[in-house]
Order: sequence, then structure tokens, then C-alpha cells
Amino acid sequence: MTAASHRPIIGLIGFGAFGRLMARHLRAHCDLLAHDSATELAAEEGVTFTDLATAAACRIVVLAVPVDRFETVIAALRPHLRRGAVVVDVGSVKLVPARAMLAGLPPDVEIVGTHPLFGPQSARDGIAGLKLALCPIRGRAAFRIGAFLRHALRLRVVLTTPEAHDRDMAVAQGLTHLIAAVLVRMEPLPSRMTTRSFDLLMQAVGMVRHDPPGVFDAIERANPYAAGVRAQFLELTAEMGRALEHPV
Amino acid sequence: MTAASHRPIIGLIGFGAFGRLMARHLRAHCDLLAHDSATELAAEEGVTFTDLATAAACRIVVLAVPVDRFETVIAALRPHLRRGAVVVDVGSVKLVPARAMLAGLPPDVEIVGTHPLFGPQSARDGIAGLKLALCPIRGRAAFRIGAFLRHALRLRVVLTTPEAHDRDMAVAQGLTHLIAAVLVRMEPLPSRMTTRSFDLLMQAVGMVRHDPPGVFDAIERANPYAAGVRAQFLELTAEMGRALEHPV
Repeated sequence: MTAASHRPIIGLIGFGAFGRLMARHLRAHCDLLAHDSATELAAEEGVTFTDLATAAACRIVVLAVPVDRFETVIAALRPHLRRGAVVVDVGSVKLVPARAMLAGLPPDVEIVGTHPLFGPQSARDGIAGLKLALCPIRGRAAFRIGAFLRHALRLRVVLTTPEAHDRDMAVAQGLTHLIAAVLVRMEPLPSRMTTRSFDLLMQAVGMVRHDPPGVFDAIERANPYAAGVRAQFLELTAEMGRALEHPV
Repeated sequence: MTAASHRPIIGLIGFGAFGRLMARHLRAHCDLLAHDSATELAAEEGVTFTDLATAAACRIVVLAVPVDRFETVIAALRPHLRRGAVVVDVGSVKLVPARAMLAGLPPDVEIVGTHPLFGPQSARDGIAGLKLALCPIRGRAAFRIGAFLRHALRLRVVLTTPEAHDRDMAVAQGLTHLIAAVLVRMEPLPSRMTTRSFDLLMQAVGMVRHDPPGVFDAIERANPYAAGVRAQFLELTAEMGRALEHPV
């Protein structure tokens, strides 16, 4: 065995903004075989572009595709998976992908849900110390992967279930992205005469406003708890607005 | 003339959380004579507590009272003001206090509106570099005061009018405080499984949630533009909520 053969090979299905971000942090530790259905892909150091069959035949396969393409992609890669492979997803919601993977992947394939709680904006200064939610779905591979993410990438790994994840994210992401989308529609907003708290709010907006539309849709539509949280936020905001119409 | 006589004496009417914060930063530069109608006042280094008449007879009089007490306080201090005094307010809105001061103060008294765009929370690590809105209302004193705030306190002074100030603050403060009040009512909120953007949003909430109720009322009720901004935010949020109910 040569030294090179110790480097794990990861198949990466989907090479959008998040796929690229991942590649930058994983290439020091693994060889990356990436596949994306987009016809034009910018070259990325340490990444070899390949066909779906080759990427899907790796020991570890990471799915970085929009949530609404999940079922189609799973059906397409299924015939190419090797026995005992580990399939990992990185989507912003965890219940829908977990169900799709449990239903669509062969029973001998291990399944791990992850949600890196950061994006290209928040990872600009590196990812050490950033959080990642980790959901073991089938098999024990999640614990090995969690140890790697903790020690090699220095992420803060939060072990959770798809349900608990989606409940918390309906608030943490659902509300932040909703508020950000509304504030962007209210532009131009003050930039010179601002308070510290408004500056922080606008920093939060700046962090999510350039996310691809698929991310917003996953967060607001594919999270089964998001609609309820939005309704509660809207009701409380309206109630407060009504209360403020009357004198003290 | 002794060296001591060069230190300006400032009369400070109102000694709440913001009055105290000001005193901490002004005492190196001025002698402070403070009056507050509250019966019990915690001693503060560099501050002498006195009656309204004495505080109001200083060359510079700073009003740090809630907006809804403005007219009463102006009427009470008017008989004690010296000719050519400078009256400065520090409220979160500028149109209502400017009108009350123009209407209630003798014509030989100069008037300066200020709004330090920070509070006890955002000033915890010092005030150098923080912003202050400055509105010359009557006379030229605002420019001398602006120079002092820039050079002695190292604040970033933003010269503006009461109207432009209130328009921007209806968004910067009106929306931030509204969103914060709603999020506080939704507690408990996620604290472990959070994104960077949600953490920033919650930092903004933490910065304003302990403001006294009078501050919230001034921002949301005494700013003539706040209701319109709230209505627009509410309408866009509701519209987005409705759009998200339908499939893409």
C-alpha cells in the first residue's frame, strides 16, 4: 500500500457554491471526485470532475444538491453505489432528505445527515469553530465522520435528530431569512445613520442575502415547521403593531 | 482665573441609565450638576446632585428625560435658564423634542438636538468610534458641541435634521426594536443549534431588550414615521408568508 492510498476518496454530487466551499476545506484531507449536471464548471484545485457513475462509486458519497432535486439524484446514483458505502447530505433541512435517503438508498448503505450551520459568507475567515449539525440516520458512520469534522476541520459538531434540527432551524434560519428577505425588499435602508443593533441586524442580512434561491426555498418550504414559526412571528408582529396604535 | 474655572459646568436634567452613561464619559471634561425627580439616586463619581433651579442655571443644560415628560420639564426649567444658555437634548427621536424646545424655550436660548446612536449595552467597551446624530435647532452652539464630541469623546458625529433623523430611525430603531420585542416574546429560542446570521440577530436583540420601556415607546410611538415603516414591514412579511404557502 502506498501512502497515497490512505487518503480517502470522496464522491461529491453537486458542485454549487456549497460544494466548492466544502472542496476547499476537504482537499487537504481527501481526494475529491466531483459530478455536477451543470455543463460549465470552474476548475477547482484538488477536485477532479467526473461522471455520476464514478463519483457515486466512492466509499463516501456527499450529496450537495438542492432539496427539491434529492429524490431524482438518489434514483440516479443508486445503481452505482458500492456495497457498504456511506452517503452524506449537507442540506439546510434534515427531515425531508433523511426520509428520501431511507426510502431510496439500498439497506446496506449507511446514511448520515449533516447541516453545516454556515455558508460562503460566514466561512470567509475560515471554518474552525463554526457549527455543524450531525444526524446519524442509518449505521455508525456518523460517529467516525463527526470525529473527523471535529479534529481535522475543527468544527463544533452538534449531534441531533432530523426532527430536533428542523424545529430549531425553523426559527434560527426560517426567521432570519424571512426578516432578511423583507428588509432587502425595503431597500434603500439607512446606512450612515444607524445604531449598533441595526448594524448587527444588517450584518445578518448581508450574510444570507446572496444565498441561491434554492436555499431560501429549502429553509422556508422544505422545513415542515417553518410555516408555523412564520405564522407566529407574523401574528405577534401584527399584534404589537395594533397595540402601538393606541396611546400608552 | 484659575485652571478650575476653565472646566465647563453642565446641568444634567434626568439621571436615568443614559444620564449615568453620559456622566461617566463627560466627567473627565466637565463638572456635572445633576437633577432627577426620582427620590433615590445612586451616587456617581464626578456628579453633584442638586435641585432643578441650580442645574437649569448652568451655561449648558442637557435634558435626558423621557420624550413624554419633555413639555413638563421644559416648563419647569424655563424660569431658571440663564440668558444665552445652550439646551441640549439626547432623546431617541428628534422632531417632537425639537418642536417642544422651540415652542417652550426663551428665544435667546440656543437649542441643540443630539441622539447618541448607542446605549449602555453598545457602549460597554467604550464610546470612541460610536455614532451620534447632531441637529442644530437654534443658534450656532451645535458646531462647538459637535467639535467637542468629535475631538474629546472621539464620537462619529453625523450632522442631520430632526426630520431626516426620524425618517432613518423609523427604520434603524423602529424595525430593530419591533423585531427584538417579537423575538423576545417567542422565547425560548434556539441557543445551541444556531447559524452565524441568527447569532448576529440575537446579538442585536440582546443589545436593546433591556432598554427601559420609555425608550421603546419613544422609538415606536413618538417617531412620526415609525407607524408607516411598521405597516410596510408587516405587509411585506404577510405577503411573503402568503407566497410561501404556494408551491414554487
